[in-house]
Amino acid sequence: MTTFSNSRQVRIEWGDCDPAGIIFYPRYFEIFDASTAALFERALGMPKISQLKHFDFAGYPLVRTRAKFIRPTRFGDDVVVDTVVSFGRSSFDIEHRLSHNGNVCVECSEKRVWVVRDETGRLKSHPVPDGVLEKFRM
Amino acid sequence: MTTFSNSRQVRIEWGDCDPAGIIFYPRYFEIFDASTAALFERALGMPKISQLKHFDFAGYPLVRTRAKFIRPTRFGDDVVVDTVVSFGRSSFDIEHRLSHNGNVCVECSEKRVWVVRDETGRLKSHPVPDGVLEKFRM
Amino acid sequence: MTTFSNSRQVRIEWGDCDPAGIIFYPRYFEIFDASTAALFERALGMPKISQLKHFDFAGYPLVRTRAKFIRPTRFGDDVVVDTVVSFGRSSFDIEHRLSHNGNVCVECSEKRVWVVRDETGRLKSHPVPDGVLEKFRM
Amino acid sequence: MTTFSNSRQVRIEWGDCDPAGIIFYPRYFEIFDASTAALFERALGMPKISQLKHFDFAGYPLVRTRAKFIRPTRFGDDVVVDTVVSFGRSSFDIEHRLSHNGNVCVECSEKRVWVVRDETGRLKSHPVPDGVLEKFRM
Repeated sequence: MTTFSNSRQVRIEWGDCDPAGIIFYPRYFEIFDASTAALFERALGMPKISQLKHFDFAGYPLVRTRAKFIRPTRFGDDVVVDTVVSFGRSSFDIEHRLSHNGNVCVECSEKRVWVVRDETGRLKSHPVPDGVLEKFRM
Repeated sequence: MTTFSNSRQVRIEWGDCDPAGIIFYPRYFEIFDASTAALFERALGMPKISQLKHFDFAGYPLVRTRAKFIRPTRFGDDVVVDTVVSFGRSSFDIEHRLSHNGNVCVECSEKRVWVVRDETGRLKSHPVPDGVLEKFRM
Repeated sequence: MTTFSNSRQVRIEWGDCDPAGIIFYPRYFEIFDASTAALFERALGMPKISQLKHFDFAGYPLVRTRAKFIRPTRFGDDVVVDTVVSFGRSSFDIEHRLSHNGNVCVECSEKRVWVVRDETGRLKSHPVPDGVLEKFRM
Repeated sequence: MTTFSNSRQVRIEWGDCDPAGIIFYPRYFEIFDASTAALFERALGMPKISQLKHFDFAGYPLVRTRAKFIRPTRFGDDVVVDTVVSFGRSSFDIEHRLSHNGNVCVECSEKRVWVVRDETGRLKSHPVPDGVLEKFRM
């Protein structure tokens, strides 16, 4: 099994927070989606827009996500997101850990599938290309 | 000049509001974009996804918007958005008025262009089709 | 154990969707959060802004969420969200089922805690008030 | 009149973009709001959450915004936002210029008011404190 990790810093903004003064939790999933994209960008050496053309696929939509909210975060917090991927055949698992000042605030696990468009334009799952897997092994 | 109007009700949600307890203003533009879509859906008698196929275009992106925020709105507010369109050749002007309990809270004016994709896939402006304009005259 | 359910219709908008033409999944959690609020509003007979004052609490933040994405949804889709709550002592479980044309698209389960502010202004969990539980029993 | 400027880089993400493959324009206003916050944070030497306590105010909501969309941006674009502020008595004007590869994509001007809470908890405008203005002069 191939694993690969990435880490990035994210600022929690005023507009990410709700009237209780803490982050509105759907914003975490925007952060995690961008963290998955950042990991792929680092492994493949190109942004997602180029990946879609280069590897001729339509994205890697979620089939399942689970998140545990341990500590709230607030606007002005600079949090760190550590992301690890493990590949299956046509799917992969992602683990995100979001921390603030060294304390874990959120843990999230995702399962995503590699999809291409069939002749009719519909999305369908497809084995992750070897050319992609190789990049994650390096 | 062809004009056409629509009105719809929108609930301001907890997640639309910021730590000051009032709406985070970018949410208004999501509401206005959906109000423009609702107006087109009513005039053309089909949702946007069908419009794109039926009239073979790529959307109507904004070239300019102006908004005046007169009164704040809060989560739980049921607001009314009144929307009017006036057509030019390949662009159109939209006016939105968002009210709560009969008091105007936001006024917004947009200019949008009708766009199609050229052979290379880039977006370019195009005259609004007659078939579209006719529907707005009825 | 007290259970209570609610159902509401939601339109998937253009701005909820990503370059693959399907909904960007964090939007589902905005929909589910508003569905939880709608259920509480119906049971308690007042919007969340009034609930916070009436029952003197600070919200019901998530401690855990799990979602399964079965079928994608697209802009223009009118989906139905069915929501059920089951109460514990100071927490409660929510199940959301989002369907389109009778087909289940997303299943989501949440655990939330009832929170109040302590003297220092920090959020802490608190037993769900009897006055709240009674309303859900009716 | 006091002016002060700041510049920051922002990544346009997949989830910021719509089915046309370009940014969904309300996202620009989230970017601009965070750019205004970043400018205040740099001038005042503390994040917004500390500013609210230190200067005892409730925020600086928008009263007006105007934006011109000149070129679209796409996911993966690293854009630069240059922000300038000019102070009046209890309001201030902000100009944002968002560029990609040196080409201006969006120009936006905002008018915001300094607000405090009155005895009843309602937001009302208030002269920008001298302690704030001094920091912007340095």
